[in-house]
Formats: sequence, structure tokens, C-alpha cells
Amino acid sequence: MPQNDTVNRRLVLAAHPKGAPTPQDLRLEEVPVPQPAEGQVLLRTLYLSLDPYMRGLMNVVGPSYAEAVKLGAPMAGGAVSRVAASKHPHFRVGDLVLGNAGWQDYALSDGKDLMPLGDMARPSLALGGLGMPAFTAHYGLLDIGQPQPGETVAVAAATGAVGSVVGQIAKLKGARVVGIAGGADKCKYAVEELGFDVCLDRRDPELAKKLAEACPDGIDVYFENVGGDVFDAVLPLLNNHARVPVCGIIAHYNDKSLPDGPNRLPLAMSTVLQKRVRMEGFIILDHYGERFRRFSREMGEWIATGKVKVREDVVEGLENAPQAFIGLLEGKNFGKLVVKVAD
Amino acid sequence: MPQNDTVNRRLVLAAHPKGAPTPQDLRLEEVPVPQPAEGQVLLRTLYLSLDPYMRGLMNVVGPSYAEAVKLGAPMAGGAVSRVAASKHPHFRVGDLVLGNAGWQDYALSDGKDLMPLGDMARPSLALGGLGMPAFTAHYGLLDIGQPQPGETVAVAAATGAVGSVVGQIAKLKGARVVGIAGGADKCKYAVEELGFDVCLDRRDPELAKKLAEACPDGIDVYFENVGGDVFDAVLPLLNNHARVPVCGIIAHYNDKSLPDGPNRLPLAMSTVLQKRVRMEGFIILDHYGERFRRFSREMGEWIATGKVKVREDVVEGLENAPQAFIGLLEGKNFGKLVVKVAD
Repeated sequence: MPQNDTVNRRLVLAAHPKGAPTPQDLRLEEVPVPQPAEGQVLLRTLYLSLDPYMRGLMNVVGPSYAEAVKLGAPMAGGAVSRVAASKHPHFRVGDLVLGNAGWQDYALSDGKDLMPLGDMARPSLALGGLGMPAFTAHYGLLDIGQPQPGETVAVAAATGAVGSVVGQIAKLKGARVVGIAGGADKCKYAVEELGFDVCLDRRDPELAKKLAEACPDGIDVYFENVGGDVFDAVLPLLNNHARVPVCGIIAHYNDKSLPDGPNRLPLAMSTVLQKRVRMEGFIILDHYGERFRRFSREMGEWIATGKVKVREDVVEGLENAPQAFIGLLEGKNFGKLVVKVAD
Repeated sequence: MPQNDTVNRRLVLAAHPKGAPTPQDLRLEEVPVPQPAEGQVLLRTLYLSLDPYMRGLMNVVGPSYAEAVKLGAPMAGGAVSRVAASKHPHFRVGDLVLGNAGWQDYALSDGKDLMPLGDMARPSLALGGLGMPAFTAHYGLLDIGQPQPGETVAVAAATGAVGSVVGQIAKLKGARVVGIAGGADKCKYAVEELGFDVCLDRRDPELAKKLAEACPDGIDVYFENVGGDVFDAVLPLLNNHARVPVCGIIAHYNDKSLPDGPNRLPLAMSTVLQKRVRMEGFIILDHYGERFRRFSREMGEWIATGKVKVREDVVEGLENAPQAFIGLLEGKNFGKLVVKVAD
């Protein structure tokens, strides 16, 4: 049910952010709702996903795996939408789909990028616990990290969309899990609700010391999604043959230039060498074909049986997406961040 | 035939180097030749291997994979030796063996660390082209780097004991090979004798630009044995799914502290992520059991048939080992550096 079925509100990129994005880097526009041509569907956005990778789309040159958003164009992003009009043989009005509507009320699609969601009870899960972030956790942890029973797994952003799933799956696989999260509430949640063995506050000035104490047997798998101080604290604790899946370095997405020294790269390379570390970057988009089905089956069961808990941080209203996104990069969200755009 | 069969000259660690080692960090001592106890052999050093990893043994705390040399103890190192006296049932006087005699004329061994070399025509090859450095190249390139025909492989220290073999094996596997070496003579040798497609001078102030020109299709495998400026130049050229076996970072072995900034670690991690790079450190000692036999068979054939050329840089006299080692860390050697200690 759109609030207004003739106006499409959309958030367009007004300026490439210099460092951290500001509200002025995005502009709310009102344009007419587009009409589907033959073979197209009109999508009404219900839930918009906000994810750290989107920061990279705002730069002049985008990341290697996705096109940058052009100035004046709507911000890109995954969304759960309802088909509002259809000139496509496979989609009917009312169908619930996962697609790439972007930061707007309405979008057109030729259907190729749409995944039907059936009558999913909690469709926003397609953006989080049953979607890209959890798939990132599942693939990166299991295929690259390969935690063994009794090993120690460390993960930051421990209550976020990715980190929370990394830690819970690692527990299911018999590992000891040490999380790092922003603040006491999140740490409490990670331990009491998600079952992490320990969770440390990333703002603690003694983080490195406390992490060492929390990992008396070192770290076998570090799931890298933040970079920065956390990685610096992890580095000396990595065990021989440690694995480091790299899915993000959120601490650096707002960097305007190389950070001040000292240069920690030689130390990292020396650790990789001496500890025989395997470090591997991955972009989850590469793996949908071969691996999404297994993820979907396993996570579906784990969520249904309560073995993995999924927490959402729902922001109401498309107009609040910019502030929510800025907060996401600062770690203000608590759980998977989604914007509820319409019912 | 020892020059003197009652005196054992040995180079002991006199001081932990601060930065680059100096001649004063090592001290030449004369002690009596030890006598083998029951179950031991006395070894006469013929060829001593000098390798960059030895720098790590001189620090207060050694690398993870080997004990540091204690002050006053002889420097450790692999050597080809002849059995000079034996109270061990499996070794006879005159046997040629590969062992860990260290930087001295004579050493004792209980035999467990000795590999019989038979009547090998060119026994010093057991320290280079048929030994640890070439095994490092063979394992790291083939098992981690996995170059495919038509891919681009980059390697530094291109005429060194490891790099020269990396490049030649990569050529045998159908890859395009770009080397980096210190000076015009070495570069000429890499191209004309070893068959590299291109070789660039590492001292060229425009190295980064020239490397980009030499790698129009990017870099698929970077065999990391130096670090420093070369790695900085390689980083932006890495292709999606590039592999980076890490066997050494010689440019940093003399670092007294973290180098000045900027901090290049976030850039490296961002590259690992966006390009889905797999970076993997390895210590060749870990792989003798499962993999040395294959290496030995393949390299033996390649060297015998001239498919892989091996160049040695032979320094005469144990007393010249310190200066030769200091030069090795500066890249002054041309080929695998060995010290001829006795005939």
C-alpha cells in the first residue's frame, strides 16, 4: 500500500562524500512514479537494506565488483518489494520479491534480478538473516575460515548482520567465540542471547590487552569485517595456520587518504609469513550460483529452530535512510539495519 | 680434507643486530674440534648456505618456526658436510650429507637431521637448486600460486635462489613472467638466460609505472619474497582472484621498528577484499614430509635437462661469511649464495 501512488520519492547522490557521508551528500527528490514497459514490472519498496558496502558506491570510482552511483542517480541497494504493476509474464501484482530497487519508493525491473519470496512470513529476513549478510557470514566462515571444534574464532561487529551470524555458526561448529562490539548492551546481548563465550567493547582503551586475555589459546579464525584497531589487536594473537576471511573493513570506508603511520603493512606481512596465515578476500556476489542453496537450506533450519537468532534494527520511513546509513558506518545500529518504506 | 683438523673455527653471535647486521655482530672463534660420542658423527663443513631467513635467527626472539641463536652460540644454518668421524651405525667416514652444521668448520650430529647425498656431482646444489630455496619456489608457486597458462606471474629477487626458480617454473607452466632484480646485469641475465619475459630494475625510481606497463593484463600471481616498495608497486596491479604466496619480506628484516607512515595496511586489506586476493604465508620446513619427493624428482629432471638453470654465487672461506651475509640482505649476491668452507 503506497502512501502515495503517483509520487516516487527517491534519495539521489548529491555529492561524493569526503570522508564520512553527511546528510547533504544525499538529496530527497520527488518524481513521477515510472510506468512499466512491456516485459517490466513496477516495484513498490517495502524494506530497503542498508549495508556498509554501500559507502563504496558513493565514491567517484566504485569498488571493483559494483558500479559507482552517478551524481543525481538514486542510491543503489537491495530491497524487498511488492509488485505494484506488471507487464511481465512471470510476475503478478502483489508478488513479494527480493530485488535491487534502490533507495526509492518505486522502481522498474525487467525481472532478471528478482527473486520471488512467496508468502514469506517475515520478508525483511531476505535482506539479513536469510539474505546477503548472513550468506556472507556462512560462506566466509565455513568455506574460508573452516573453524574446527575447540578452535577460537574472533569476530567484530559482533551483533551486526554479518558478525552475529558468524559467531553463532562458529558456536554450532564447536568453536570458542570471542566477539567485539560497540558498547556494553551489545556485548551483553552477544553473550546472553547469541551465546558468544566472550564479547569485548571495541571502545575499551585496553582492547588489545583484554583480547589477549580472552584468547589464551590464540585466534585460529579471525573473520575480518572491520579493520582498524581491532585488526591491530588481533594480529599478534593469530595462531599458526590461522585463517582470515576478509569481507569488509568498515573502519576505513570513510578514509580520505592513507591513514597516518607507522606503516603496519610489514608487520602484517611478517605475521602472515611466520604464522603461515591464509588471508582471503571474498565478495559474496561471486558465490550465489554455487553456494546460495546450501546457505538457504541450513540457515532456514537454524532460524526456524532457534539455533541462530536474528535481530533487526528497523528504521521507519525512506526519508530517514540517510541518517540511518551514516549511523551504520559509526556502528550505531543494533542488529541488521533495514528501512521500512511501506507496509 | 680439513685445513686444520684440530681447530674448529666458528662464527658465534656476538650481539643482536640493531637494524642491519654489522661484522661486529658476529665473532670468529677458535675452539677444539669436538669428538663424537656413541651414536654421533663429526661433520666437516664443505658448503655453508647463506639465506635471508637467518636474519630472524639473530634477534632476541626468533621467528615462530625456529629458535633464535643465543649470544655466544654458533650461527645456525644448513650445510653440505662430509662425515669426518663416525660413531653412528648408519654413517661412514667420507659420506656426503646435508645437515645443519651451522657457521663452523666442524659440528656434531646424532644423524637424525642428516640427509645422505650419495655421490652427488655438485653437492652445493643441495643448498640451492635441489634444496630449500628451490623447494620454497616450487611449493609456493605451484601449490599456493597455481599459475595458469597465459597468466602473469611477478617475482622479485628474480636472480636469487628462490626468485630465479619461481620464474623459470612459471615459464614452464605457460605463464608470462615479470621479474624485478637489482641492476641491469641481473635483469639481462633474467631475460636472456632464465627466459623471463621482462625484468625491471628495483632501483628504478619509476618502478611502479614500469611495472604497470610491463603487466598490461595485471598480475595473477605475485610471489612475495621481498616486501617493501616492490609490494607497494604490485598491489594496484593485482587481478581479481590473484594469489600471493608469502615466503619472505627481506626488505623488512632489518627494520628496527614499524616503518614510518602512511599506514598502507588498510589499502592492502582493501585490495585483498575487492580483488578477492588469496594471500598465504608458508614456511617450507612444514612441507618436507608430504612434498619434498615430488619437488626433488621434478627439479632433478628440469636441472638435468637444462629447463631450469641454477646459478651459484660462491664465496670462499668461512671467515668471509659475515660480509657475504650482510651483502645478501642488501641484494649484493648474484645467484644462490654459498660459502665454500673446505674441499
